[in-house]
Amino acid sequence: MKIGIIGGTGGQGLGIAIRFVQAGEDVIIGSRTTEKAQAAVDKIKDLLEEVVPNIKSAENPDAATEADVLVLTVPLTAQRATLISIKEQAAGKILMDATGPLESAIGGSPTRCLYLPEGAASERAQKILPETTIICAFNNISSGALMNFKEPIDCDCLIAGDDQESKIKAAKLIEKIPGVRVVDCGPLERAQIIEKITPLLIGLNIKKTCKDAGIRITGIDPDCKLY
Amino acid sequence: MKIGIIGGTGGQGLGIAIRFVQAGEDVIIGSRTTEKAQAAVDKIKDLLEEVVPNIKSAENPDAATEADVLVLTVPLTAQRATLISIKEQAAGKILMDATGPLESAIGGSPTRCLYLPEGAASERAQKILPETTIICAFNNISSGALMNFKEPIDCDCLIAGDDQESKIKAAKLIEKIPGVRVVDCGPLERAQIIEKITPLLIGLNIKKTCKDAGIRITGIDPDCKLY
Repeated sequence: MKIGIIGGTGGQGLGIAIRFVQAGEDVIIGSRTTEKAQAAVDKIKDLLEEVVPNIKSAENPDAATEADVLVLTVPLTAQRATLISIKEQAAGKILMDATGPLESAIGGSPTRCLYLPEGAASERAQKILPETTIICAFNNISSGALMNFKEPIDCDCLIAGDDQESKIKAAKLIEKIPGVRVVDCGPLERAQIIEKITPLLIGLNIKKTCKDAGIRITGIDPDCKLY
Repeated sequence: MKIGIIGGTGGQGLGIAIRFVQAGEDVIIGSRTTEKAQAAVDKIKDLLEEVVPNIKSAENPDAATEADVLVLTVPLTAQRATLISIKEQAAGKILMDATGPLESAIGGSPTRCLYLPEGAASERAQKILPETTIICAFNNISSGALMNFKEPIDCDCLIAGDDQESKIKAAKLIEKIPGVRVVDCGPLERAQIIEKITPLLIGLNIKKTCKDAGIRITGIDPDCKLY
């Protein structure tokens, strides 16, 4: 599977890219410029300290064209412009949106939520890209845990979306990351809750209660389908 | 310690009462009428199938007068009136607020959040009772798990509040419930996030993904103070 990490040069994008590269998927890191994307690819190659044939760089629209599945990892302030830049290329595809509606986007604390007119940041993404299937994902997994690539991740990946088949595809991909269990939380509007857990976890990291705080859902029926 | 469960006749109130009775604390179940409170006490005595000297009933204001620490377990629609009814009696005391801002309060789904003018339901409680120390607590622990009193509870109790000493007192009490680990998430405004996790967990119960869904925080530093 070819996975395009749109705006993939920050900690979260790099971490997701590394994890998918490790899982043997083909990864394309997208950025506004090829230079920035290539710098991210070089960084990943350095970190992995081995020959990595399954990663390359591209401008965002080209990454979106070539990839089968997309992941968006940009700050809230860049979400709209980035999505508009790949609008045609992303049509008909799945896009996993990891955008966090944090107050830091407007000069404030990453431990506080913004309340967006559209509801969730992922609902906003769906409005901007109506021809793309948006799935809220990766919000609860910290960059630190993703980047700590020699260790499994002790965290559930809560997802939400309106198309069941797309959620199953995304979930199977996400669960290639060691330790991660996907829990489908329901329709896309449930992203309003999932995204708001992020500033809580960031707060626990800042308080030094946790390093790379995450969550696990308890009480799961062992016979149930998680997605 | 004398614990007053204000509006303690629903599933959550009964469950918390049972757990504190089991822990050997003195519990007073409060309700609008003594009859309703006494019916709840009788139910708990039946469930426990043993002599239980450490539980009694009272009207809410009397329960608030006699108790050292209060727990509020009422639906959102009853929160304001119930708090006003104990305003004088609760002054100077700690009140753990478990109110969930669910859409069901206004004829809707328990899997959706309401956004209140005050922020969190617990912030609303603090505005109504400025002389009381409000701590957001118990939101993430299901009634079912509380009522399943022969088993420990596989869930963290996320708390938030503005007075550190009061949070420590509350946390020590809450951790008398087997299995429960308290995680202090910071100032009271963080209740805006804690309370919103409840409809997500209810959604997982409705989808049959979980029975009595709960959460655990991961990545906790073993050397840290959780509260």
